[in-house]
Amino acid sequence: MFGICYYPEHWPESQWKTDARMMAGLGLTYVRIGEFAWSRLEPNPGELNFAWLDKAIEILNDAGLKVILGTPTATPPKWLVDKWPEVLPVSPETGRVRGFGSRRHYDFSSKIYLREALRISEEMAKRYGEHNAVIGWQTDNELCCHDTTLSGSNTAKQAFQCWCEQRYGSIDALNEAWGNVFWSMEYRHFGEIDLPLGAVTETNPAHRLAYRRFSSDKVIDFHQQMIAVIRQHAPGKLITHNFIPMVDTGVDNYALAKNLDFTSYDNYPLGRTDLQFADWPAEKLQRYMRTGHPDFGTYYQDQTRGLNDGEFWIMEQQPGPVNWAANNPRPAPGMIRFWTLEAFAHGASCVCYFRWRQAPFAQEQMHAGLLRPDGSKADAWPQMEQARDEIKALDLLTHSPSRASVALISGAEAQWVSEIERQGEAYDFNNIQFEFYSALRALGVNVDFVSVEADFSQYTIVIAPSLPIIDEAFVQRCKRSKATFIFAPRAGAKTREFAYPLTLPPGPLQAIAPLRVLSVETLRADCPGELHWQGKIYEAGIWREELAAENGEVLGRYEDGKPAILQFGNVIYMGTLTCSDFLKDFFHAICDRAGIATYRWGEDIRVCQRGALMFAFNYAGEAQDLPLPDDGDIVLGQRRIAPYGVTVWKSAASALQ
Amino acid sequence: MFGICYYPEHWPESQWKTDARMMAGLGLTYVRIGEFAWSRLEPNPGELNFAWLDKAIEILNDAGLKVILGTPTATPPKWLVDKWPEVLPVSPETGRVRGFGSRRHYDFSSKIYLREALRISEEMAKRYGEHNAVIGWQTDNELCCHDTTLSGSNTAKQAFQCWCEQRYGSIDALNEAWGNVFWSMEYRHFGEIDLPLGAVTETNPAHRLAYRRFSSDKVIDFHQQMIAVIRQHAPGKLITHNFIPMVDTGVDNYALAKNLDFTSYDNYPLGRTDLQFADWPAEKLQRYMRTGHPDFGTYYQDQTRGLNDGEFWIMEQQPGPVNWAANNPRPAPGMIRFWTLEAFAHGASCVCYFRWRQAPFAQEQMHAGLLRPDGSKADAWPQMEQARDEIKALDLLTHSPSRASVALISGAEAQWVSEIERQGEAYDFNNIQFEFYSALRALGVNVDFVSVEADFSQYTIVIAPSLPIIDEAFVQRCKRSKATFIFAPRAGAKTREFAYPLTLPPGPLQAIAPLRVLSVETLRADCPGELHWQGKIYEAGIWREELAAENGEVLGRYEDGKPAILQFGNVIYMGTLTCSDFLKDFFHAICDRAGIATYRWGEDIRVCQRGALMFAFNYAGEAQDLPLPDDGDIVLGQRRIAPYGVTVWKSAASALQ
Amino acid sequence: MFGICYYPEHWPESQWKTDARMMAGLGLTYVRIGEFAWSRLEPNPGELNFAWLDKAIEILNDAGLKVILGTPTATPPKWLVDKWPEVLPVSPETGRVRGFGSRRHYDFSSKIYLREALRISEEMAKRYGEHNAVIGWQTDNELCCHDTTLSGSNTAKQAFQCWCEQRYGSIDALNEAWGNVFWSMEYRHFGEIDLPLGAVTETNPAHRLAYRRFSSDKVIDFHQQMIAVIRQHAPGKLITHNFIPMVDTGVDNYALAKNLDFTSYDNYPLGRTDLQFADWPAEKLQRYMRTGHPDFGTYYQDQTRGLNDGEFWIMEQQPGPVNWAANNPRPAPGMIRFWTLEAFAHGASCVCYFRWRQAPFAQEQMHAGLLRPDGSKADAWPQMEQARDEIKALDLLTHSPSRASVALISGAEAQWVSEIERQGEAYDFNNIQFEFYSALRALGVNVDFVSVEADFSQYTIVIAPSLPIIDEAFVQRCKRSKATFIFAPRAGAKTREFAYPLTLPPGPLQAIAPLRVLSVETLRADCPGELHWQGKIYEAGIWREELAAENGEVLGRYEDGKPAILQFGNVIYMGTLTCSDFLKDFFHAICDRAGIATYRWGEDIRVCQRGALMFAFNYAGEAQDLPLPDDGDIVLGQRRIAPYGVTVWKSAASALQ
Repeated sequence: MFGICYYPEHWPESQWKTDARMMAGLGLTYVRIGEFAWSRLEPNPGELNFAWLDKAIEILNDAGLKVILGTPTATPPKWLVDKWPEVLPVSPETGRVRGFGSRRHYDFSSKIYLREALRISEEMAKRYGEHNAVIGWQTDNELCCHDTTLSGSNTAKQAFQCWCEQRYGSIDALNEAWGNVFWSMEYRHFGEIDLPLGAVTETNPAHRLAYRRFSSDKVIDFHQQMIAVIRQHAPGKLITHNFIPMVDTGVDNYALAKNLDFTSYDNYPLGRTDLQFADWPAEKLQRYMRTGHPDFGTYYQDQTRGLNDGEFWIMEQQPGPVNWAANNPRPAPGMIRFWTLEAFAHGASCVCYFRWRQAPFAQEQMHAGLLRPDGSKADAWPQMEQARDEIKALDLLTHSPSRASVALISGAEAQWVSEIERQGEAYDFNNIQFEFYSALRALGVNVDFVSVEADFSQYTIVIAPSLPIIDEAFVQRCKRSKATFIFAPRAGAKTREFAYPLTLPPGPLQAIAPLRVLSVETLRADCPGELHWQGKIYEAGIWREELAAENGEVLGRYEDGKPAILQFGNVIYMGTLTCSDFLKDFFHAICDRAGIATYRWGEDIRVCQRGALMFAFNYAGEAQDLPLPDDGDIVLGQRRIAPYGVTVWKSAASALQ
Repeated sequence: MFGICYYPEHWPESQWKTDARMMAGLGLTYVRIGEFAWSRLEPNPGELNFAWLDKAIEILNDAGLKVILGTPTATPPKWLVDKWPEVLPVSPETGRVRGFGSRRHYDFSSKIYLREALRISEEMAKRYGEHNAVIGWQTDNELCCHDTTLSGSNTAKQAFQCWCEQRYGSIDALNEAWGNVFWSMEYRHFGEIDLPLGAVTETNPAHRLAYRRFSSDKVIDFHQQMIAVIRQHAPGKLITHNFIPMVDTGVDNYALAKNLDFTSYDNYPLGRTDLQFADWPAEKLQRYMRTGHPDFGTYYQDQTRGLNDGEFWIMEQQPGPVNWAANNPRPAPGMIRFWTLEAFAHGASCVCYFRWRQAPFAQEQMHAGLLRPDGSKADAWPQMEQARDEIKALDLLTHSPSRASVALISGAEAQWVSEIERQGEAYDFNNIQFEFYSALRALGVNVDFVSVEADFSQYTIVIAPSLPIIDEAFVQRCKRSKATFIFAPRAGAKTREFAYPLTLPPGPLQAIAPLRVLSVETLRADCPGELHWQGKIYEAGIWREELAAENGEVLGRYEDGKPAILQFGNVIYMGTLTCSDFLKDFFHAICDRAGIATYRWGEDIRVCQRGALMFAFNYAGEAQDLPLPDDGDIVLGQRRIAPYGVTVWKSAASALQ
Repeated sequence: MFGICYYPEHWPESQWKTDARMMAGLGLTYVRIGEFAWSRLEPNPGELNFAWLDKAIEILNDAGLKVILGTPTATPPKWLVDKWPEVLPVSPETGRVRGFGSRRHYDFSSKIYLREALRISEEMAKRYGEHNAVIGWQTDNELCCHDTTLSGSNTAKQAFQCWCEQRYGSIDALNEAWGNVFWSMEYRHFGEIDLPLGAVTETNPAHRLAYRRFSSDKVIDFHQQMIAVIRQHAPGKLITHNFIPMVDTGVDNYALAKNLDFTSYDNYPLGRTDLQFADWPAEKLQRYMRTGHPDFGTYYQDQTRGLNDGEFWIMEQQPGPVNWAANNPRPAPGMIRFWTLEAFAHGASCVCYFRWRQAPFAQEQMHAGLLRPDGSKADAWPQMEQARDEIKALDLLTHSPSRASVALISGAEAQWVSEIERQGEAYDFNNIQFEFYSALRALGVNVDFVSVEADFSQYTIVIAPSLPIIDEAFVQRCKRSKATFIFAPRAGAKTREFAYPLTLPPGPLQAIAPLRVLSVETLRADCPGELHWQGKIYEAGIWREELAAENGEVLGRYEDGKPAILQFGNVIYMGTLTCSDFLKDFFHAICDRAGIATYRWGEDIRVCQRGALMFAFNYAGEAQDLPLPDDGDIVLGQRRIAPYGVTVWKSAASALQ
């Protein structure tokens, strides 16, 4: 299925019918509209104007298109913020109000804004909830984008005090939980609590963790209430949200995604690659600047798919150069089709492009669309047509994505911990998680992202790249699984309230990995030590733990012979971070032992399975030979895979590896 | 003619006579005084004290010197800002008041400050307007230096709302012009408009462009009113202003310069080179750290000369090490004389040195003067004497600088556009313009900077390095000229209100360059593609456009064979930025074809013509042989040009190339 | 003697006895407690609770331990800052209040905080002043750590106005002293004076110097009043303060240390090395990341020793990885013992470790202790035992550290000047001073740091790496000494009120070094010129002066043959900064001539003398042969010094070199 993002309010009404007809002609099914249109829906306080939207929906419906309607709460109008200035958020870094003039100018702690957002959402849901053409809803837009999770406002401070009171009950319990005695940081009552901002030097990490939890909870509250309002008036309709990466928002997306029918992701491989890998040398960046890093798009797609354990959409697909990265290259030839097939291969059930026609004004006028501002068809148009026909020929959507054999445990708490207590400047939660994912993907292994609360019983291998906070229940779930568990350093290194486990790390994990971390050192990324494994020497750097264990098999050692990786039955504990080469070799060995098929076909080839179909994607600008046994089962493309090409064949076994 | 910057208020009155006598003895004609002396002229509100200034002028006059009197408005005294705190500007970045304690602490939007500045200026003009010794006036000092064009004050906000109302008439027109519907940014009345500052993410580029225009207009208003006040009381006297580069201020210097008798420039080649080229590797910086980049001083001098199409002065000439760059080297031996001759060669009619005697206190005590604090003569002294004698011997001032054959179109709007919408981090307006200028100067070609509103009919070649906003009138002026026009990428890429042309770029330019820009990509500076031209391969990077044209000759192509440079009759459109080597080769070919003489005499030699005199300047520390046909016409220096030397000869043709 | 830092309030009372017994068993003598415990000592305003502290002291006393009691003024409790918000400091950079939540959240200009700090200190002094177990006091904790010397508060502004009035008497005198006429910066009365913050561009350096002096004076006032209060109630007890480096605080530590019985230093070689040398390439950092730079720990120890010309302690010794640097490596094997011996060799009379047991909560939970959070003994434990036994065997404390032959003149004023007027970005006061110190230490020469007011008569060589402000009295003291004086560039370059000497630099120093600095240039660090000395070429960069002298011997010359180093009798004036190689060669020659023994035993060996004992420390990870004549006098270690090893032998001459 395919869809498009469209803004009727940006174009003269006279153009709407032509647009709708062309959309239908292109084979699109869905049109997302409305998510920034508050100033048109309510031009003055309380003065609702749905006439134009009625008309737009009618025209789209007449053309056979189905509407996903966005609540416009990402862009409250000027009158609203002038009437209630407290809805504006405050920058935690500078203490300045973050004002009107762009988008997302609201504070999740503002009860007034919550009321207003629910009011406009309810008005829309009442009007269109049972409208035939409106088959689904998108809540807000990219919640918490532009670093809007945290606010340093007085509103947020008061809400935080209430949140603390609810969580800890008594101020003594809070003081005790946070260890406030440390630097005379003890409070006498909840009204004394500040946000952990603007202090002379670093604030208590437990205080900061509470602030992160509180901030995440506020976003979740906001979102869940909005879902409930829509659900009430739009029974039986789909509700989704277009997520941006969890690491960008620092919100618990697992909780945020609850009660959605499916999750969506906004997929911009080039912009994200440019920003994420800005420190790459030229030869490396040049290689991927027009394709994106081979694992970077799917990294977030697989995460989005994992949020509610099922269906996901690409709600916005980059169709050409964008406007918001530091550098905005043109995609390599054919990449729009390539990314489209890739998303479906990773389990998407629909891909929507952003946007229909390049806007000729305001912030995104340099962002490509399927059409140029003059109405001519941009490069993405024929590519979308090709992908559409190929998906149909493959009958792809009948191949349900099924659970992978390998799971990566992810979650916001690990990110919060590592941001609050960096300890080593090179310890970056997202880099670490991405390195683990990328190593697995270089082996052609499908990967599920799961939360720490997941049921691990169906997985063969479960890997935790960074999991400082765990509890007994987690350990019990591990025990109930026969999977091979691999824990990277820092597992169990913190209690729930950001304290050091009194039994030393890995704390509760000692029940299944009986070892003690005697000390930790962090090294600059370019000053690593060594990891010896199976006669080869790799890097052991960034975060290195001194391990003590009575038993356990020593899998890897440091340069001085001390244990770096220990195995206890089906549990492997890595005491050190390491290099990508090690991760590939190590996971390769683990997969082989576990009977999981691997496809380590070179740096630029990625293999992925969906149902009975195997996909190979060539991120290189040169054709390459795929080591397939024969051509017999190829259903798309060739054994010699084209530059930026895709080859699809039928899997010998219809089950996943 | 020569002059000096002098501060009698810094020295005991007993020293003034000696100073005046020495100045006259050195052959100086002009003395600029008074521009920071407000606290001495009006020590208490309304209490004027001109006695000391009367005396100083009298002494200078008695020595035969002429005074350029500065209005002291760059430094309002403490009592003024305490009495009316609203005159203080506010930092647009931080929102903090920019307070007293240095200089330029006033907001161009403050009506109170305007009133006060005009009052003190008028008082001075009344007193000295017809004074025999005061032959000219300098308005304020380096307007907008230290990033003072923009203010984020409430005063500025209210003034901006008025400005908007005047420009757009109705709020609907403004909303439409800016495309405010995009993210519900629509206003209901002018009083709702904020400055485009402090929003959550980027604000509307049309909003920002309006803010830049407004801010520039405020400076122009301030300046023009001051000129008018002086003119009224000082009829027949010269009025000038000492400009700093337009790119530093972001003000429309063409408008700012109107009604001046001539423009002036403050020439600090070393300080500017150190700051501008701070990322240069050591071997490159070392080469020019004591001379300045060969084109960097004249780049701004030629711009200043172009502001009002006539005479210009160096009002402040660096006489030795300065104090304000990150590193402050000593000029190479002879550079003061070198820079002096260079300025005259580029059309200056007077060079004034800053300052007479090194100040032994306050902010600039490490800034050299002609005299050291102990009264001894610094290195600059004998060099100035040499330059003075040489200029006289050459009878240089009888050689009027005449219009060049090559014009570069410059202007503040292009800078505003590229700062507001960077699109690619490597797209830097000033770098681009400088690369174009430098390539022309490496060919020894005289260059005029002209505004987009200039009359192009007298030029042979007209080049627009960055010209996103044009109108029909511009296209008509192009049509009326027989010049070869060269447009770099982004020409015509924006409408007047910062929208995308609905006919695609280059918008109105399509009338003379019938092509369409289908897409744009920006690349990191170190990741360029290729430009193929006349069998050679150059860089095509930073900003690359996909061009479509029915006709037109393809002059250059990208690595994939697609057109990169197109020619339509006398109009050349470059779809890509490129490297310095290409610009030199390309302009060389264009000049040859147009019959313009070139002097491509190596990396460190610059040739310049003034009237019938040809100048060669050697920026290298080694002597070099100039490829002159014979020595016959040499009137200064030798064919083997000395290190940091100057050679002058009589042009075969007395007209400019 | 040995000690420990302990926080009984962090642990259950039930653990105190065991802790005390273990401490005594380890051979510790001193326990520092109490310095962050205000919220436990006064949980509500005026409600004092000493019961727990009585108990803790009793238990420690019973185990035979002696207590150093800290005043808890580094951490005022929440109720205090809520009751009197003016005690909070304001960031001079951002203008934002620096709030509660960590430590050091008070403004040295707040009279209310001074009153409160003296009140709680007096209460403690009254209660424990004559307590048998409390043998000493520590004032506050690391005064001015976390950049808390300066405050931009209104409180500070008013205090600064008073300070100015006291210093200058009349506003005319201040205007004259500062040269405020320069940019109309003249004040009419003291109430008009702002802090030199937030102006449009740089403020008057004289104004800034006054602000630095004022800020330093406020800290000294605060400290001296606290000392007086303790002294009054604790007659005969020791009072110390744990200093951090003077360059980190920008306070005149010589004045701050007055009236203390001894000074203390908090010694964290790895954390400091990581932060200070963050720009080092990997190969260089890797070499010292687990040892610290060979001269960096002792650099500050020797400074601390020099503060009051006598005894010093290590009050906090790093026992393992810390938590606060950008990267926190584990010390190399044996480094705790190594650092302990090193401190004693440099004159320490006691080494205390920080901390007893790693805290399992709050900000420093990743900071190692002698014990781990689970009570197990960390690496530092046996190393401390070894050091303890060795110190005893050497009978080290009977060897009094005596005055060195070489003195380095240090002081806060030089740092203020170079921070206020950088002139060249590479001119860094601390780097320069450290390079000089490190060159001397590479020669194995003991070094005393002395203030500009010291008596130089007992030294053989006196070196001033950076000494811009001097007076006649200083020159007289120089004249009275027979030492060889070496002045680096910038000596005497400023008057006391930050003006340029009217006789040119080196100002008053011209009485003993009759030369004039004609001009100064600053160069980027990677663009040096040359220094020719004794037939060899070294670097002359960063700061280079043009020197004129009638007489004087030219010791070194620039690349153009002009004098760079001049000698006048026993006074040497260096006109340029230079490289480490030159400093070593040059000081080597000077020492040889002066009859000072040197031990230039390679890059990683450092030799130090204490009394009759000679110490060699090997910072390398490989064993090395020491060029000792024979093994006869070795009393610890071997002639082949172990990796990270220490060798001690008896000096032939019992006196210092």
